[in-house]
Parts: sequence; structure tokens; C-alpha cells
Amino acid sequence: VNRTPVAVGLDIGGTNLRAGLVAADGTLLTRRTAHNPAPRRSGDDAEDALVDAIVAAWKDLGSNLPLGVGIASLVRSGGHLLGGPNIGVHDLELGDRLRTATGTSVTVANDATVAVWGEHRAGAATGLDDVVLVTVGTGVGGGVVTGGRLLFGATGVASELGHIVVCADGRRCPCGARGCLEAYASGRSIGAIASERAAEGGLSGALAGRAEITGQDVTEAAAAGDEEAALLLAEAGRWLGIGIGSLVNVFDPAVVLIGGGAGQAAGDWLLPAARDALTPQLIERERRRIPPVRLATLGDDAGMVGAGLLATQT
Amino acid sequence: VNRTPVAVGLDIGGTNLRAGLVAADGTLLTRRTAHNPAPRRSGDDAEDALVDAIVAAWKDLGSNLPLGVGIASLVRSGGHLLGGPNIGVHDLELGDRLRTATGTSVTVANDATVAVWGEHRAGAATGLDDVVLVTVGTGVGGGVVTGGRLLFGATGVASELGHIVVCADGRRCPCGARGCLEAYASGRSIGAIASERAAEGGLSGALAGRAEITGQDVTEAAAAGDEEAALLLAEAGRWLGIGIGSLVNVFDPAVVLIGGGAGQAAGDWLLPAARDALTPQLIERERRRIPPVRLATLGDDAGMVGAGLLATQT
Repeated sequence: VNRTPVAVGLDIGGTNLRAGLVAADGTLLTRRTAHNPAPRRSGDDAEDALVDAIVAAWKDLGSNLPLGVGIASLVRSGGHLLGGPNIGVHDLELGDRLRTATGTSVTVANDATVAVWGEHRAGAATGLDDVVLVTVGTGVGGGVVTGGRLLFGATGVASELGHIVVCADGRRCPCGARGCLEAYASGRSIGAIASERAAEGGLSGALAGRAEITGQDVTEAAAAGDEEAALLLAEAGRWLGIGIGSLVNVFDPAVVLIGGGAGQAAGDWLLPAARDALTPQLIERERRRIPPVRLATLGDDAGMVGAGLLATQT
Repeated sequence: VNRTPVAVGLDIGGTNLRAGLVAADGTLLTRRTAHNPAPRRSGDDAEDALVDAIVAAWKDLGSNLPLGVGIASLVRSGGHLLGGPNIGVHDLELGDRLRTATGTSVTVANDATVAVWGEHRAGAATGLDDVVLVTVGTGVGGGVVTGGRLLFGATGVASELGHIVVCADGRRCPCGARGCLEAYASGRSIGAIASERAAEGGLSGALAGRAEITGQDVTEAAAAGDEEAALLLAEAGRWLGIGIGSLVNVFDPAVVLIGGGAGQAAGDWLLPAARDALTPQLIERERRRIPPVRLATLGDDAGMVGAGLLATQT
């Protein structure tokens, strides 16, 4: 173990800005949680508030340490945010803004990308060089380590694993396309599908007759013993397994990790169904090694840990 | 240009064994074509005949140069063939057998994997470090270069791009799964779909009333002006575009190449339809860079060139 502080890692979502002082071994030595101020503002005001909040967290924790930021957005190489549905800004040169404001080395990447780096370096995939992480939260995200390196792609926006097609011409995805994995297996989609079933009168248990059911409602009902809720989660898990089947054929990972708030909360229902659906999709399934599908272990810390460790490498 | 011979590259399919003497710049200085002797034999006899044919081609071309082999099989790291539907052997330690027989350094990999390496080093993707190649032949294969390195995965069998799901619970794929890209867009699938349409009486043009239509028949009919055949190819191209959409969201490549015999022959119909179907599947399609989809340029040479150049690196 090496508990020397080496970087400040931030994980920024639509609601929270989590900041941690990261040690060389991936331990979080100190942590702070603030609100992401951007979503309630607009334009330059939102951008300035976001930059100020990041710089304040960095100063508070680390003086001149390198700064790593994971954020719920497509991020071009160098740190240009293309935008995400929830973070309140788009088309922002966040990397450049932070380099100017801090004078330190800055790394900005997608939140699931830094999370898989955290799990690879200090979590559920320590010692494994080929890792697929699927994050199931409001949406479905992903990060990939292949041959010991993060997958970034030509412009930096690779590993959008929630937007592989599982059912062409199928359900509309928030991204605007049809049939994406996210349209079937995200927390939001699980809630939407439950709401549709309830509206059609197709449910008779705890969720019957309810409007605007959330993914969390479904998980809570399943945890309380409602069989329809458990089946809704198993359906989502089946879609997840089909998508993971594609990803295993593509990446041949040593392990598939499921992270994200909904993934962690509903893992008891999602994972068994995903494993059942995975194997029949694999080429040469009788002779190949089938990777385990299991929960990520760093939870909400994965982004901070991964962002911090990534910042020390550049 | 550097025309010094550096390796012997082989490309082995169900029918042919192609061998070439590869120069440092990727040029093929000499080439030979023989038959793959394995498919008409069985067991040890097939294995021995395959090894002997490879060693003979290597001796004929290169005396003691490194040997690279691309073969239509899943190949584990080190050169263990899991097997492919057409090559006549499975569960064969081909790498070890060839190292013993030749005494030189030997690299064995999947045929599409070596082909993308050839295109990356000396073909349509020269200078680009993030490349997806989809080969459309009897089946659908693939190879991926990411960050300048080949994608192999934890055990070596990554980049089976024909076996991403495009339509869950859809058409049966030769791999045994349902809804794979290969089940809609391979030469064999194009022929099978055309045969089904003809059997249902759904065709009135050049393919009407015919049994056992092949993909090549469909391409020839389209080339002769048959509109139904052109539509069948455009349908396959649409599926190809949907699959490529998933792959672009996953890999963010600088270019997507289409190779393989059927891909090259039917490119005039497949590619426009694939491009049309691709864009609507991409996340942040208004703001991201959308990679070009174009034909590979090395044709049947890609495997030899890539296998040879890969052999010089190990």
C-alpha cells in the first residue's frame, strides 16, 4: 500500500460533484460532496459555475496536485465536453478552462471511462487487463480496458456501451435512436416500461395503477417481494445479458462488471438474468472461456479513484 | 518504400491457402496459392496436412523468415485454434506445431484480425490508429485497431464483429445464436433470405422461382439491373449500418472499412444503405465526427500482408 496523495479525482453527475484526494494505491484519503451548480443555470453562467466549483474542490483538497475529472458527458480527447443530457453544459472546453484556472495537469474523461479505470487499478478488476464495465444508472454507460489501456477511440468518445443496438427499430432511446440497450435496461427505461404496463392494466401487484413509476420504485417493490417487479427487473437483466453477449464477442474481456446506482441496487435481479441471457449469444460458447459477470466494488468511489489515478499518468 | 523481405504471410480459408513474401513496407514480393487440404480430411490427418501445407509454403517462399498466419478460426493467444466452420480443424495447437516444424518465430491470428492490421499498416487505413474492419464474406468477421494496437482480448478471440446482436430473438445465425449481424448481412444470409422470398413467391424478377440462391447470385442479378436483387442487398446493407452504428458508438473509429469477397463485390449496394442506416444510430450525431464507411483496398492480399507484418513484431 502506498498512501501518498497523488491527485485529486472528481466525479460529476447531474446532481452531485464528488471530490476525493486519491493515494497512489487508489485509496481515497479525503472526500467532499458538493452540488453540480450547472444544471440550474444556463449558458456562460452554467459554464463558469461548473469551472469554479471544480477549481474550488481541487484547491480545497490538493493544492497543486494533478486534477482528474470524470463527467457524465461525451468528452473529446483533451477535455472538450460535447455534452450530456444531465450535466447542464455542452460544447465546453473544460480541459483548457481547468488548465488555465489551476496551472496543474488536468485530465477530463467520461464518468464511466474513469470508473472502469478505478475498478481496473484498485477495484473489482485489479490485475485484469481486459475489462468491460456497464454502468446502469439513469442511463446506461460504459468503460473498457483492453490490453491494459483505456479505450478512447479516434476522438475520445468511445465506449458508449448503452448505445449498442439490441433490438433494431425497437424502443426509442433518450439518445434519439431506436433499440439501444439503454432503452431497455436503464433505471429510467425500467421505470418507463413499468409505467406503461401499469397504464395498460397489465400489473396487479404493488405497482398496479401507479403512474410515473421510477426504476427505484421497481427495485424497492422487488425487494419487498413483489413478483411483477422482480420480473420487470429480470426482463431488463435479459436485455443487459444480450448486450453483454455482443460486448463479450467484441472484447473477449476477462470480466464484465456491472456498476451504476441502479445496477448496484437491483443487482440481485439483474445479474442472474443477464448471465442466463449471455451464454447463448457467445460464439464458440462450448469451447471459449466465458467471463464472469459481477458487480463493481468501488461503488460511488470508482469515478473519483479512476479520475485521480488517470490524472497521474499524463 | 522498403522492399526488403521481412516475413512470410499466409491467409487460410476454407478453400484456399494464400502465401506471400512480405516486404517491410507491406508490399507482396511473391505470392503462391494452394488449396487448404484440411477440409477434405479428418482428425489427425487433417491437422497434419494443414501443418505440412503451411510449412511447405513457408519454405518455398522464405527460408528462415518469421511466419505469420491468418486463419478463418477463433484463435487463442499463442496460436491455439478453437475452430471455425470451414477450415477443417478445431482444437489445434497450430502455433506450437508450426514453431516446432519451422524453428522460426510464428504468429497465428484470426483472418480478419490480420486483415485489419494489413489495412492499417499498408492499405485503406494507413496512418489511422483507430480502425474497424467488417468483412462480409460467407460469414461476417471483423478486426479492430484501437490506439494503434490490435484488439485481441483476454484470451485472443476478440473482435467477432459478425456476432453482435442487431435483432434480439431474430434470425438464427450459423453460430447458433439468434439475431447476430451475420444472420442478416453475410453472403450466405443474403442468399438464404433471397431463397426464402423466392419460395414464398415474393419475387417477380430475375430471382423468382429459383431455389438455393447464393449471395453471389443476388449480387450478379443486381449488377444486371434486377431491382429486387438490389433491394435485397440494400436490406443487408441497412443491417450492416445498424451493426456499424453499434461499433462506432463502442470504438469511435477514424474509419470503418468493409472487406471480404461479398463486401467488395456488392459494395455498390451495401455501402450506401449502410451509411444511411449508420448515422441515426449514433449518440450525439449532430456534434460528433461521423467516420467514413468505405471499402478496404488490399482485397485478398490484406491477410497475407497483415499476417506477415504482424509476425515481424513478435
